[in-house]
Amino acid sequence: MGAVHKEFFTVRTVAEALAGFRPERRTGSERVGLDDAAGRVPASPLVAPHDLPGFPRATVDGFAVRAADTYGASEGLPAYLEVAGRIQMGVEPDVELAAGRALAISTGAMLPRGADAVVMVEHTAEAMPGTIEVVKPAAPGDGFVRTDEDARAGDVLAPAGRPLRAQDLGMLAAAGLVEVDVCARPRVAIVSTGDEVVSPDTAVPGPARVRDATAPALAALVREAGGEPDLRGIVPDDAASLGRALTAAKDGADVVVVSAGSSVGARDVTAAAIGRLGEPGIWCHGLALRPGKPTLLAECDGVPVIGLPGNPRSALVVFRLVGMPLVRLVGSVTVAPPEPTVRAVLDRDLPSSAGRLDVVQVRVTDGVATPLFGRSALLSVLTAADGSIVVPEEATGLPAGTEVDVTLY
Amino acid sequence: MGAVHKEFFTVRTVAEALAGFRPERRTGSERVGLDDAAGRVPASPLVAPHDLPGFPRATVDGFAVRAADTYGASEGLPAYLEVAGRIQMGVEPDVELAAGRALAISTGAMLPRGADAVVMVEHTAEAMPGTIEVVKPAAPGDGFVRTDEDARAGDVLAPAGRPLRAQDLGMLAAAGLVEVDVCARPRVAIVSTGDEVVSPDTAVPGPARVRDATAPALAALVREAGGEPDLRGIVPDDAASLGRALTAAKDGADVVVVSAGSSVGARDVTAAAIGRLGEPGIWCHGLALRPGKPTLLAECDGVPVIGLPGNPRSALVVFRLVGMPLVRLVGSVTVAPPEPTVRAVLDRDLPSSAGRLDVVQVRVTDGVATPLFGRSALLSVLTAADGSIVVPEEATGLPAGTEVDVTLY
Repeated sequence: MGAVHKEFFTVRTVAEALAGFRPERRTGSERVGLDDAAGRVPASPLVAPHDLPGFPRATVDGFAVRAADTYGASEGLPAYLEVAGRIQMGVEPDVELAAGRALAISTGAMLPRGADAVVMVEHTAEAMPGTIEVVKPAAPGDGFVRTDEDARAGDVLAPAGRPLRAQDLGMLAAAGLVEVDVCARPRVAIVSTGDEVVSPDTAVPGPARVRDATAPALAALVREAGGEPDLRGIVPDDAASLGRALTAAKDGADVVVVSAGSSVGARDVTAAAIGRLGEPGIWCHGLALRPGKPTLLAECDGVPVIGLPGNPRSALVVFRLVGMPLVRLVGSVTVAPPEPTVRAVLDRDLPSSAGRLDVVQVRVTDGVATPLFGRSALLSVLTAADGSIVVPEEATGLPAGTEVDVTLY
Repeated sequence: MGAVHKEFFTVRTVAEALAGFRPERRTGSERVGLDDAAGRVPASPLVAPHDLPGFPRATVDGFAVRAADTYGASEGLPAYLEVAGRIQMGVEPDVELAAGRALAISTGAMLPRGADAVVMVEHTAEAMPGTIEVVKPAAPGDGFVRTDEDARAGDVLAPAGRPLRAQDLGMLAAAGLVEVDVCARPRVAIVSTGDEVVSPDTAVPGPARVRDATAPALAALVREAGGEPDLRGIVPDDAASLGRALTAAKDGADVVVVSAGSSVGARDVTAAAIGRLGEPGIWCHGLALRPGKPTLLAECDGVPVIGLPGNPRSALVVFRLVGMPLVRLVGSVTVAPPEPTVRAVLDRDLPSSAGRLDVVQVRVTDGVATPLFGRSALLSVLTAADGSIVVPEEATGLPAGTEVDVTLY
């Protein structure tokens, strides 16, 4: 037909894109309560304002003692100590422990001055009312945690850039940091295009039309990456409509994602519209990736833009591979949460081309990975899969029997 | 002292607890929109109401043809076809393809009646205006997806019991299922106890007191397991207060979690209060687990109850191991999301006792797992860790050099 196929001016590998496409856009910070802080990213290191636990604290039930009073104690030759009372839980002891004496203490209570060890109750016996015998010597430091043993004032309790985990919240609560400064969630505008695409809530799309499957799935992936999706609806595949829609989307967004039309013509319209959206413009027109070659990366007036392939399956593969890392970058995540993976043995040959990354959907059963083939237009291949494997750029395929790492969904 | 240590009447292994403690409590179902459905658990299988995509849909840019018209075509001997027009995107073609003819078509458009293949534009050339030559034969079915190839009416798009993933939402959107019935989130009441424990928002706890680190961390784990935490505050360690608080907590809850006091005395009070809370009552008084032995499992008038150890680190280890599976059970999750793990080589000997499961916190660097030791009272061991490994009940320890699976945080 003489049609000029100008769609892939600049094709990059996925590794090049991850290393080289690093827009400077970052969200600001905001203050949130601990209740809302799980998974949020500290804007700067969160530091202990004082020592923790803040006082010497018993870790066993027993008796606060001077360790020296128990030296050499044994079953045959116990040390005898006079019980001078009981430490009350949650109250600072008002007595100092004198030599030759013991104070009953429970796990969690504060050691009295003068004591340097807690003897477990199991290593004691009542010799006579008011006197115990200790049958095992204690060393200084036994049976309690020091004032600053869990954290010292100034210690980093949670680093910047790593999403807060449950135990981090515990540590922050212990330190009284009930409000923390975190990076705001990147606002990710999702623009759908395609003259054949209608909204998911269309009861009867009519023949030749499909509901927008990509946008709701992308919204979930955006949230998983710590972003806040903004579904901007479906825009017709013409230059004017798309230009207006992208300009409006860019204004309020930290990242713009375009779920492009499926035809080459529609993709050309999208590429042109993104090219006109702002400076410096398009960074690459394609990725050496299957599925997902027609992926466009751009930066327009400081806002990163991703143009995704038209079919939902390719779009989701690309967004996991390069979109989620981009959302995390903008959200200042420097330590991404670990991904679930499993090792498995490939049950058949996987052909591939050198120089291209292949993402292959697989089912995993008893340590065996079975590739799911099927046209890239089929979303059902992705919903039937337990995870995916990557055939690296340098490989020309993987033979049956290869041990592979499956990234699980 | 002659104290009777009656705390561990019934000690079970973790495996016994997971297999044997299976309360029947389940949440009801509720209807949510697709926007809020990520991670939610379908109450019953979600089924395609009609075929998908619902029409024969081109997957390449090119020409709709009758495959038979291209048989034997080659570069040397092309097949010549008359171009009878172009199919419009998103519109049902109003023409039937006649023999010897072709219709230009874009990816995503509907095949016309009479066509049984789409020839890629790359395998064609314009012979003269209005006529193309096809240089590669097409087989019936090439270049498009069948009406029911992504899903057939009645196919299960997402099974009951598996939390919805991004691609599942895409499939549901494609099918127009914009509202789905999911299991309600289990309401998990979290009751903190301990006379030395004060609220995390206490500016100056004063000596001998600690802020409640466990409850905020548990709340995050409850959410991760699909539940809705209900923080019930801190209750004094006396039978009457605790009894009242547990009764009130049980009323509105699907699961009750008690973050117990740290001393043996406080745990006894908790055990007695749970024992009186309802029938059939306590299922086990301890787990063969370190840390986490003083864990109590009960079912009280149909509500599962977990009594956790007093120190935050043990409490979180236990809650990950048996609490989160319980919340998922009550929330009807039958396929738990995969956990991130990594294989690593242990860099030193890990002693353990047979008959007891040990959970050991580790740092992982370049495939080497370094155990983090430290008193179980120290939460900092958990925040410093990258993950944990399990030394199984039957092992008496793991020698340095053992390959271990690290569950990552």
